Parts: sequence; structure tokens; C-alpha cells
Amino acid sequence: MRRPRLILAILAAGAGLAAVATAAVKPESAIAYRQAGYTMLGWNFGPMAQMVRGKTPWDAAEFARRAERVAQIAPQLLEGFPEGSDAGAKTDAKPEIWKNMDDFKAKMDELVKQSRLLAEVAKSGDEAKMKDQFKQTAGACKACHEKYRNEE
Amino acid sequence: MRRPRLILAILAAGAGLAAVATAAVKPESAIAYRQAGYTMLGWNFGPMAQMVRGKTPWDAAEFARRAERVAQIAPQLLEGFPEGSDAGAKTDAKPEIWKNMDDFKAKMDELVKQSRLLAEVAKSGDEAKMKDQFKQTAGACKACHEKYRNEE
Repeated sequence: MRRPRLILAILAAGAGLAAVATAAVKPESAIAYRQAGYTMLGWNFGPMAQMVRGKTPWDAAEFARRAERVAQIAPQLLEGFPEGSDAGAKTDAKPEIWKNMDDFKAKMDELVKQSRLLAEVAKSGDEAKMKDQFKQTAGACKACHEKYRNEE
Repeated sequence: MRRPRLILAILAAGAGLAAVATAAVKPESAIAYRQAGYTMLGWNFGPMAQMVRGKTPWDAAEFARRAERVAQIAPQLLEGFPEGSDAGAKTDAKPEIWKNMDDFKAKMDELVKQSRLLAEVAKSGDEAKMKDQFKQTAGACKACHEKYRNEE
């Protein structure tokens, strides 16, 4: 027996699924969303960094798998910074983001570009190229953090 | 001037990037990661649910964009449930998950399958088919939540 109405009622009640309307996003929801994005980025970026630093054995396939995930998540981050989400919950995002949105977007675009390049380079399995492109991608993270993130 | 060593040192220090080695994941990191995954799923699932329920105007392109994201995130969730991550931080995941991992994996596979189908169907722009497949996908969420999630 199909019970679509029940399923949707459960969804609406928030069974783990934030009911976010595109038009009216609560600041705290946007903050939680973007922090989730960075958590997922970090989860995948971390093991790659460990390999690049020689702390764990080099595993090209694992690296490529994680690079592809980073490339998928990176383009989803910008949506987590709507106007008005500079406050509303604990956030390390500096108010400067919303005063320099064009520059912030450009830095996000750079992350998207570099992480996509990383995923593409990773398909080759060429260790040196992968390590070099990893550093380019890490540089894109750093450039944005330095300017727009309150470092703890 | 390139400063790869500095960049890596910053990464290692945890500039928003959890240093997770694949081999030894802390339970609290896995819990944070999987919760991030569900937050991102919900962020994208919510607006689709709103459209399906007629609460916001139907927008096939927006629906398709979010469906693709859900299909990308769904396969990343299982990694957030390593052995031993039934405790270590606040979690709604029931201990039954780790006692029935094969069944849990099967339910995750079903979500991956249904959400991929949703993303594919969404490319067609066929509203009726998209709504129907959305309900199938929501059903995959529900089947797992009912058995393995402590509903608040």
C-alpha cells in the first residue's frame, strides 16, 4: 500500500530533512548547511592531505574517489551564504563576505575550478600531477579562509 | 611565491578541514560527517518536497538541479557509519545499524538507486514522473528512518 501523503507529512514534520524553501531560507539553516558542506569537504580533503604529506600510503584510486567528491561538493557551498546569513548561529564566516560578495564568489569559483581540475587530473593516476594540483586546490581554500574566515 | 609546505601545515592544523585518516576515524568525526551528509540531503530534498506538495511553484530545472545533488550525496553517507561510531557524540543512529549492517547497507543502496533514478527522471522534465519518483525516493528515506533512526 502506497501512502505518499503520509510520507510527505513525515518529510514536512522534519524527519531529518530541513524544509527549506528556496525563497525564504532561515539564516541558521543556511549556516548549518554551509558548515555541513565544509565538514564533507574536510572529510574528503583530509585523507588526500595525509597522502600528499606521506602520512598514509599513496593510493591513487582512493585519492581520485575523494577528489571527485570534493569536486561535487565545492559548487554547493556558495548557496550557503545568502544575504542575511552573517549571523543567526555560531559562524566563522566574516561579515566581509557580504560586503565583498563579488570577490567571495570569485574565490568560490576558483575553488570549484581547481577542485574540478583535481578530479580530472586524478583520473590519470599521475602521482606528481595529482600532488601538484592538490596544492593548487588547497591554495584556493587558503586564499578564501585568509580573507573571509575567522580562524580559531 | 608558492608555499606548499605552509599550506599543508595549515591544513594539518585544521583550518576547517578535519584530518581524517581512512584507517582510523574517530567516532565523533564519523558522526559529524554523516550528520553533515544528511543536512546537505535535507537542504536539497526540502525544496523538492515543497514543490511536490504544491507549497512552492513547480520549477523543473530547480528540481533537477537538487535531484542531481541528492544523487551525488546519497552514495557518500554509508562511509559515516564505521564500526564503533554508534556512540561518541549525540547521534540519532540506533545501535541496531551495526547489528544489522547488511540490511542497513541494503537500505542505503536503495536510497542511492532511487535518488539516482530521480536525478535521471528529472532530466526529462516530466512533472508526473518526477513527482512519482520523488515519492519512491522519500520512501527509501522513510524505510531506513523507521528502523534505524531515533525520531525526535
